Amino acid sequence: MPQMRILTETDLRQLVPLDPEAIAAVEGAFEALATKAVAMPPILRLDIPEHHGEVDVKTAYVPGLSGFAVKISPGFFDNPKLGLPSVNGMMVLLSSTTGLVEALLLDNGYLTDVRTAAAGAVAARQLSRPDSAVAAIFGAGVQARLQLKALTLVRPIAEARIWARDPGKADAAAAELSAELGIAVTAVADGERAVDGADIVVTTTPSETPILMAGWLAPGQHVTAMGSDAEHKNELDPTTIAGADLYVADSLSQTRRLGELHHAIAAGAVSADAPFAELGAIVAGRNAGRPSAEALTICDLTGTGVQDTAIATLASDRAIAASAGTSFTS
Amino acid sequence: MPQMRILTETDLRQLVPLDPEAIAAVEGAFEALATKAVAMPPILRLDIPEHHGEVDVKTAYVPGLSGFAVKISPGFFDNPKLGLPSVNGMMVLLSSTTGLVEALLLDNGYLTDVRTAAAGAVAARQLSRPDSAVAAIFGAGVQARLQLKALTLVRPIAEARIWARDPGKADAAAAELSAELGIAVTAVADGERAVDGADIVVTTTPSETPILMAGWLAPGQHVTAMGSDAEHKNELDPTTIAGADLYVADSLSQTRRLGELHHAIAAGAVSADAPFAELGAIVAGRNAGRPSAEALTICDLTGTGVQDTAIATLASDRAIAASAGTSFTS
Repeated sequence: MPQMRILTETDLRQLVPLDPEAIAAVEGAFEALATKAVAMPPILRLDIPEHHGEVDVKTAYVPGLSGFAVKISPGFFDNPKLGLPSVNGMMVLLSSTTGLVEALLLDNGYLTDVRTAAAGAVAARQLSRPDSAVAAIFGAGVQARLQLKALTLVRPIAEARIWARDPGKADAAAAELSAELGIAVTAVADGERAVDGADIVVTTTPSETPILMAGWLAPGQHVTAMGSDAEHKNELDPTTIAGADLYVADSLSQTRRLGELHHAIAAGAVSADAPFAELGAIVAGRNAGRPSAEALTICDLTGTGVQDTAIATLASDRAIAASAGTSFTS
Repeated sequence: MPQMRILTETDLRQLVPLDPEAIAAVEGAFEALATKAVAMPPILRLDIPEHHGEVDVKTAYVPGLSGFAVKISPGFFDNPKLGLPSVNGMMVLLSSTTGLVEALLLDNGYLTDVRTAAAGAVAARQLSRPDSAVAAIFGAGVQARLQLKALTLVRPIAEARIWARDPGKADAAAAELSAELGIAVTAVADGERAVDGADIVVTTTPSETPILMAGWLAPGQHVTAMGSDAEHKNELDPTTIAGADLYVADSLSQTRRLGELHHAIAAGAVSADAPFAELGAIVAGRNAGRPSAEALTICDLTGTGVQDTAIATLASDRAIAASAGTSFTS
C-alpha cells in the first residue's frame, strides 16, 4: 500500500516561497538539462474548445533527483465568469526508482508561478549586468509581481517601472510592489519610456501581438520574455532577436515551436536552424554568457518540465523536514 | 478553494467491480470515439532506463461526459525485487467545464485493469459469435483472469482453457477461475490445443515474440489480442491479421504504431495504410461487425484514453452516490 503526502496550496505557499533556494533548485535543473541524461518528453496538450479550455501535462526526469513530477496545468478561460481562476492544476511527485506516488501537490498552479519566476531570476543572474539597478516589467499580473521580486533576489534593483495595457492595474501593482519590496516602483503609461534606461526588461503578458519594439532597446540591457508559452502568443517585435548580441532559450526545441524565437523565424528575421545557446549550458559554463557590459541579451522562457521536477522535489523535501501536509495510504 | 474527492484503491475496488455497467461505460466511450469530437492526444511517454522504469500519461475528453481523466501509469520492472508491484499509478479526474480537479483516484492501476478487461468484453460482444461457449486465454496474470470474467458477462461461456508459459501459474489460475466463475476451467500445456475448438481466444501476455500461430486458428473464431501496448510487444504471428476476415483496432493510429498491426505491417504481411475498422465505429453501427458465423475476426487492443475517462467518470459518479472517499479542499 503506497504511502504518500498530500500538500494543499496553503501548505505549499508556506513551504515554498520564492527564495534563493528555489532559484538555486531551478538553476540546478537547467544545468542538469544541459549536462545530464535528462528525459523531458514533448508536452502533452489537450484542447477542449467548446469550453475554452486547454490542459498541458509536463514531466521530466532529472538524474540525481529522487523524484520526478508530472504536472497537470489546465487553463479554462471562461472561469472568471464563474468567479474561478482561469489557471489551476496540480503536480504529482513520483519516485525515480520505483514509480510510486510520493506526494500530491495540490497547488492550484502556485508552484508553477514560483518555478517560472525562479527561471526569470536564473536568466537575470546569468545574462544581465551584475550592476543592474533599474527594472522594467511589462504586465501587472501574478508573474509581473513575482518576476520583479525574483530580480531583487539576484540583482541590486533599486527602481522599477510597470507598464500594463490597463493603467489602473499597473498603478495597483506598482503601489503594492513598492510597499512589499521597499524600492521605488512606478507605473509608466508608455512602453518605450518604461524601457528607456532600464537595465533589465521582463515581459510577462499573454499578448498575441508584440508589445516590446526592437527600436526601444539599447546596448547593455537584458530582456527576459516569459509570456509566450503557446504558438499564438508573441511579446517581442520579431526583429528584436536578430538585433540582439546574445539570444538564449530555456529549451531551444520549445522556443523554436512556442516561444518568441518561433515568431522571429516565422517573420524571416532568424533562420529556423540558427544554433542558439540554452540557459542550462550557460549555467554549466559550456556556453559563454553576456559577452560585454554593452551587449544586448535576450532570454526566451517557455517553461520546462525540469523546473517542475525541481520545485516539486524542493517542496517534498521541505514538507518531509517540516512534517507538513497529510499522510495518505492507498 | 477547489474541493475534491480522494478515493483509495480499497474504495475503488468496492465501487467499480468489473460489471455490466463498467462494460457499458467503456462501450459508450468507444462509440464516442467514432461519433463525437473526442480529443485524445498522443500518449506522453517518459523513459527512465537507469531504473528500468517507464511512465505513460493518457488523457481524453469525451463530449457529454462531465469530467476527463489524466492517467499516470508507471511501470518499474525492478520493483518485484523490492517486493513491490511493477505497475502502479493513479488517475486525476478534472471538470470538463472548469478544469478544476474533481477527484483523485489512487487506484494503483486497478481501474486500468477494469477498463482494459471491459474493452475485451466490448470486443467479444461486437465481434464473437453470440453462441460462443469455449474460451482460450493466453497468460495467467491479472488480465488473464479479468478477461475471462469479462467474457462470461457478455457470452454464454461454459468452458475455458488457460495456457501460460509457466504451467504452474496456468494451473493456479485455472483452479481459482473455476471456483470463482463456476465454469470448467483447465490449464492446457500446448497453445495449439488450447485454441482448438475455442470460440474466443484472448491473448494477455507481455510477450515479445508471437505465441499464437495463424495456422492454429479456424473459421468462426474470434481473437482479442490485448497484451501489446508498446512497440516491442507482439503476441500474434504477423500473418494472422492478413488471414483474418475482419481486423478491428481500438485506435488505428495506435495499433499501427504499438499493436499487433504494427508487427504485421513491419513483416510486410499488411500494407501500412490498409483501411481497417475501429471498434467504436462497429459499436456505433457505422461499420459492419462479424460478417458471418464462419468468419475469423481479430480485435487489437492497445488501450485508449477514452476508456480511462469513462471508468474514472463511473468511479466518481458512484463515489458521489455512495458518499465514498475523503473530501479534501485545496
